[in-house]
Amino acid sequence: MKSFTQYLEFNTKTRRAYLNITPEVRKLVKKSSIQEGLCLVNAMHITASVFINDDESGLHHDYDKWLEELAPHEPIDKYEHNKTGEDNADAHLKRQVMGREVVVAITNGDLDFGPWEQIFYGEFDGRRPKKLLVKIIGE
Amino acid sequence: MKSFTQYLEFNTKTRRAYLNITPEVRKLVKKSSIQEGLCLVNAMHITASVFINDDESGLHHDYDKWLEELAPHEPIDKYEHNKTGEDNADAHLKRQVMGREVVVAITNGDLDFGPWEQIFYGEFDGRRPKKLLVKIIGE
Amino acid sequence: MKSFTQYLEFNTKTRRAYLNITPEVRKLVKKSSIQEGLCLVNAMHITASVFINDDESGLHHDYDKWLEELAPHEPIDKYEHNKTGEDNADAHLKRQVMGREVVVAITNGDLDFGPWEQIFYGEFDGRRPKKLLVKIIGE
Repeated sequence: MKSFTQYLEFNTKTRRAYLNITPEVRKLVKKSSIQEGLCLVNAMHITASVFINDDESGLHHDYDKWLEELAPHEPIDKYEHNKTGEDNADAHLKRQVMGREVVVAITNGDLDFGPWEQIFYGEFDGRRPKKLLVKIIGE
Repeated sequence: MKSFTQYLEFNTKTRRAYLNITPEVRKLVKKSSIQEGLCLVNAMHITASVFINDDESGLHHDYDKWLEELAPHEPIDKYEHNKTGEDNADAHLKRQVMGREVVVAITNGDLDFGPWEQIFYGEFDGRRPKKLLVKIIGE
Repeated sequence: MKSFTQYLEFNTKTRRAYLNITPEVRKLVKKSSIQEGLCLVNAMHITASVFINDDESGLHHDYDKWLEELAPHEPIDKYEHNKTGEDNADAHLKRQVMGREVVVAITNGDLDFGPWEQIFYGEFDGRRPKKLLVKIIGE
């Protein structure tokens, strides 16, 4: 069994952002030279997500609006967590809806994806450096 | 390390549907002859889910109603994504709540499940052929 | 390839509870002696979750309140599932938001975690014994 580990770092200019990281992850799969296996991609920070969906800006707008309805940022003092001096309780909630991680099959040395599957880094409390992990195991 | 890959196809008659795919997945685990490992089951389309829960029709009714409250199908023009000519923005949202994938332990050559765990294909924009991936790695 | 399987049992005193299980999982990773691999941690019951987030009691309060808003326990007869004699339909819904499982990278024989990542068992229908599975594969 082979394994491969790589850390990526993001520092978004806005509080919330949705970044297509498929090209970077695909490059790492090639670099690992693993042909058959599983690829885990996860946010290492707890106010960010990794998820798979469509690369369509209208949809990202819809996600953003919807998440803000489900778990609004304001009023800040609505959340107990924010009494610790934070203002990001909503980001912890949004991340649970969108998920921490994806596990993707590696087949014939590539991400085994359907026609529109793309991997996104979802940031809900950005404007500072945050890490993401890519771990691949297989043969 | 062994690996096993299989694609399944679904074409539901209704827009939304919840199909118990546990027997098919279990058959594939046996066919793989893997005794100890991990089994990834994921939707390959981005308006469908794979999730694990109870095989109880009342509960599926509750899921359906709840998802429609959280992310209503109509009005269609409520969503930016639907300005691309689609009418399925709600399906992309519903799929995030229910999840893209499950990872299941394989122990002694079978799905290592609790008493009520069953795997479902959740369709939110059906009436056309859509694929699902089963990837098993182990020994 | 090595594999390691362990079952944990929880019996919370309250209907809902959030337990930090990181120390137990870390102990099992050490016990497995696997240096590089993947660790699956999943609830084996369908009204409980395993998720990764912050160990901050205010945040857990916020999660609890938010989940109760998204999928209220009462009125009991609001849910079709509860016509089977259950009163836990809301727990099946809450578990979908928080997730069934996490997959964590094992690097250098330990959980490969960001600074605040902690693993939680989320119980939404407790006061009875329920199981959780830890499965590790790697080398």
